[in-house]
Amino acid sequence: MTVLRSSAPPTQRTAAPTSPPGQDGLDLRWVRQQVDAVMNAFVDRKKSAATRAGLPVDIPQAIGEFLAAGGKRIRPLLCVLGWHAAGASGSPAQAVQAGAALEMFHAFCLIHDDVMDHSDTRRGQPAVHRSLAARHRSGRSRALAENIGIGSAILAGDLALVWSDELLHHAATELTAARRERVLPLVDLMRAEVMYGQYLDLTSTGRPTAHTAAALEIIRYKTAKYTIERPLQIGAAIAGADDQLLDALSAFALPLGDAFQLRDDLLGVFGTQKKTGKPAVDDLREGKHTVLIALALQLADPFQQRLLRSLYGTPRLDEEGAATVRTVLKATGADQAVEQMITNRYEQALPLLDTLPIPTEVQHHLRALADQAVWRTA
Amino acid sequence: MTVLRSSAPPTQRTAAPTSPPGQDGLDLRWVRQQVDAVMNAFVDRKKSAATRAGLPVDIPQAIGEFLAAGGKRIRPLLCVLGWHAAGASGSPAQAVQAGAALEMFHAFCLIHDDVMDHSDTRRGQPAVHRSLAARHRSGRSRALAENIGIGSAILAGDLALVWSDELLHHAATELTAARRERVLPLVDLMRAEVMYGQYLDLTSTGRPTAHTAAALEIIRYKTAKYTIERPLQIGAAIAGADDQLLDALSAFALPLGDAFQLRDDLLGVFGTQKKTGKPAVDDLREGKHTVLIALALQLADPFQQRLLRSLYGTPRLDEEGAATVRTVLKATGADQAVEQMITNRYEQALPLLDTLPIPTEVQHHLRALADQAVWRTA
Repeated sequence: MTVLRSSAPPTQRTAAPTSPPGQDGLDLRWVRQQVDAVMNAFVDRKKSAATRAGLPVDIPQAIGEFLAAGGKRIRPLLCVLGWHAAGASGSPAQAVQAGAALEMFHAFCLIHDDVMDHSDTRRGQPAVHRSLAARHRSGRSRALAENIGIGSAILAGDLALVWSDELLHHAATELTAARRERVLPLVDLMRAEVMYGQYLDLTSTGRPTAHTAAALEIIRYKTAKYTIERPLQIGAAIAGADDQLLDALSAFALPLGDAFQLRDDLLGVFGTQKKTGKPAVDDLREGKHTVLIALALQLADPFQQRLLRSLYGTPRLDEEGAATVRTVLKATGADQAVEQMITNRYEQALPLLDTLPIPTEVQHHLRALADQAVWRTA
Repeated sequence: MTVLRSSAPPTQRTAAPTSPPGQDGLDLRWVRQQVDAVMNAFVDRKKSAATRAGLPVDIPQAIGEFLAAGGKRIRPLLCVLGWHAAGASGSPAQAVQAGAALEMFHAFCLIHDDVMDHSDTRRGQPAVHRSLAARHRSGRSRALAENIGIGSAILAGDLALVWSDELLHHAATELTAARRERVLPLVDLMRAEVMYGQYLDLTSTGRPTAHTAAALEIIRYKTAKYTIERPLQIGAAIAGADDQLLDALSAFALPLGDAFQLRDDLLGVFGTQKKTGKPAVDDLREGKHTVLIALALQLADPFQQRLLRSLYGTPRLDEEGAATVRTVLKATGADQAVEQMITNRYEQALPLLDTLPIPTEVQHHLRALADQAVWRTA
C-alpha cells in the first residue's frame, strides 16, 4: 500500500515566491497571485499524493474548487501588509506562505460554518456539503446522500484545517526560533478566538435579544480579531515586530474589524445574491443575534416587535416575509443606526493609521483595504 | 475586552514531566499519568483563559470531561515506547507532550466521528453532541437543541484539533530543527491518513460488499496507520530515529494495527455495552463496510445474503433483528474467519518485534500492548 506522502522533499514543497515585480513589494495583485499559486500548488500535490496512494481525490478537489470559487483573500493581504508594516523588505515568501495558511484556515471555517448553518450556497456555488452530497447521490436516497455530504464536509473542513497548519509549518520552518515563538502563539489565539466566536454565534442563534453588547462580543471574536487583527499581527510578527507595534496594529484593526462585520450583516439582509454569492434570505432565516436585530428590537414599537419576533429566524421564511422584516428593520431606523456605528468605527480606526510607525505606502494600502472592507457592496 | 491568552509565559506552559520513577523510564502507568497530567493542566489553562476573557467554558469543559471519561491512551503509550525504541534515555518530556497531543487529536477524531455516525454514546457517557444539546435544551425545541448540540460538537472537535496542534508545538519547540523536520511531516501524514480513512469509511457505509480488499484499505487508513504505526514512529523520530528504524517499526505496526481494528469490529458486533462503552447494536445499525460483513456476504447462502442485506445497516434495527444478524454472521463462519485473520496478523507482527534493533524492555512492553490490543474484550 502506497504511503500518502508528497513526492517533493520538504525543502521543495513550498512554491516559494521569488521577488515581487516592483521595488517595494507592495503590489497587492501580485501578492494575491502568489498566495493563490502557493495554495494551488499545495492542493495539486495533495491530489497527486492521494492518486498515487489509490485514495479518492474528492476532498482535495472539493477544497481546491472552494478556494477557486472566490474570496477576497483579505487575510493573506493583511498578513503580507503586516509584514511590510514591520519594516521588512526583500522577498515576502514567509508572509505569503503564512497568508496561504490563513486562507486555507478560512476555507475550513466556511466549510464547517455552512454545515452548522445549513447553508446551501457559498460564493455563488453549492456549499461543500451540498456538492459532496450530489457526488454520492447515485443509487442512494436523498437523506442518505445528504448525510454523507454533511459527514464529508466535516472531513473536508478538518482536512483544510490540518493543511492550513501544514502550510504554516512550511512558513515557520524558515523563521528563527525567536520569531517562530512569537508567530505561533498568535495563530493559536486566532484559531481559538474564532471558534469561541462561532460558539457564541451558534448558541445565540434563534433567540436574538435587544442586547447589543452581546452581539458586539460575537463579532469581535468571530470577525474582528480573526479577520483583521490577527492576520496583520501574524505578518508583523513574522518580520520580528515588537509588542508595541503589535498593540498599535490591534488598536487600528479591532474597530475596523467590527465595522467589517457590521457591513456584512447589513449586506446579508439588504444585499443581493448576485453580489454576495448567497441568498439574501439566508441570514433572516438563520435568526442570528446580530447588532442589527438587537438595535431593531430596542427601537421597535410593540407591533414591530411582534412582527420581528414572529418572522426573524423562521427557517421557512418566504420572500414576502423577508420583505416585511426588511421593511421593519428600516422603519425602526436600525439600518441607519448600524450605518452610524460603521462610520464611528471607521472614524475611530483610520486616524490611528496615520500614527502607526509604519511605511507610508503600507498606510496607503491599509487605508484602501479598510475603505473596501467597510464601504463594499458585495 | 480581555484577550484569550494563557497567563503563563510559553516556557512555563508545559506541565513538563520531570523524571520517571524507575531507572529505565518504562513504567507505563507513570507514562499514562504524565500524559493525563499534561492534558489536564492544558485544559485547565484553557478554561481559566476563557473565564478571564468572559467567554463560556462549555467547550473546554466538554473536552476535559471527554478526556476524563476513559480511553486506553494507546497512542501516547506507543509514542513514548517509540521514543525509548530509538534508544533515548533521560526525561521523556517531549515524547509525553507529543503523546498528549496525539490523545487530544484522538478526542477530536472521536467527537467528529460521533457526529458523523449519529452515535449517542461514547465511553459509557452521552456523546459530546448529546451532552452539549442537553446543555442548550432549556427553552428550546428538541430539534433546535439538537442542532446546537451538533454545531457545538463540530466546534469542540475543531478546538480539540487546534489544541492538539498547540500541544505538539510545545513539544516541537524543544527539538532541534533537524528532528522537528522529521517529526512534523509524520504528524501531517497521520492526520491526513485518518481523514482519508474516515472518508472511505463514511462513503462505503450503507452499501457493504463482499470485497474484503476495500474493507481492509479502510481499516489500514482509519486505524492501523493512525493508531499504531504513526504514534510509534513519531515517538521514535522525536528521539532521532533513522529511516531504517522507522520502516522496521512500520512493518511491525501495520499488521498489528489491522488486527486491532478487526478485533474492534468483532467487539462492536458481539461485545457488550458494559465493556465497550457503547451499545452493541450501534455498529449493526450503521452498516459500515467491515471485513466481517464482507466475509459474511462472501460465505452466505442466498437466504443468509437476503437476511444480511435487509437487516445490516438498518437505522432502526431492534434487538431481535440484531440477534438475527449476529446469528447469520456466526452461521456463515465470518466471525471465525475474522478471528483467523487477527491471529494471522498477530503472528506476522510479533516475530518482527524480536528482530527490531530496540531495547529488550521496549520489546517486552510492545508485546504486552500488542497482546492487550489484539486479545482484549473491551
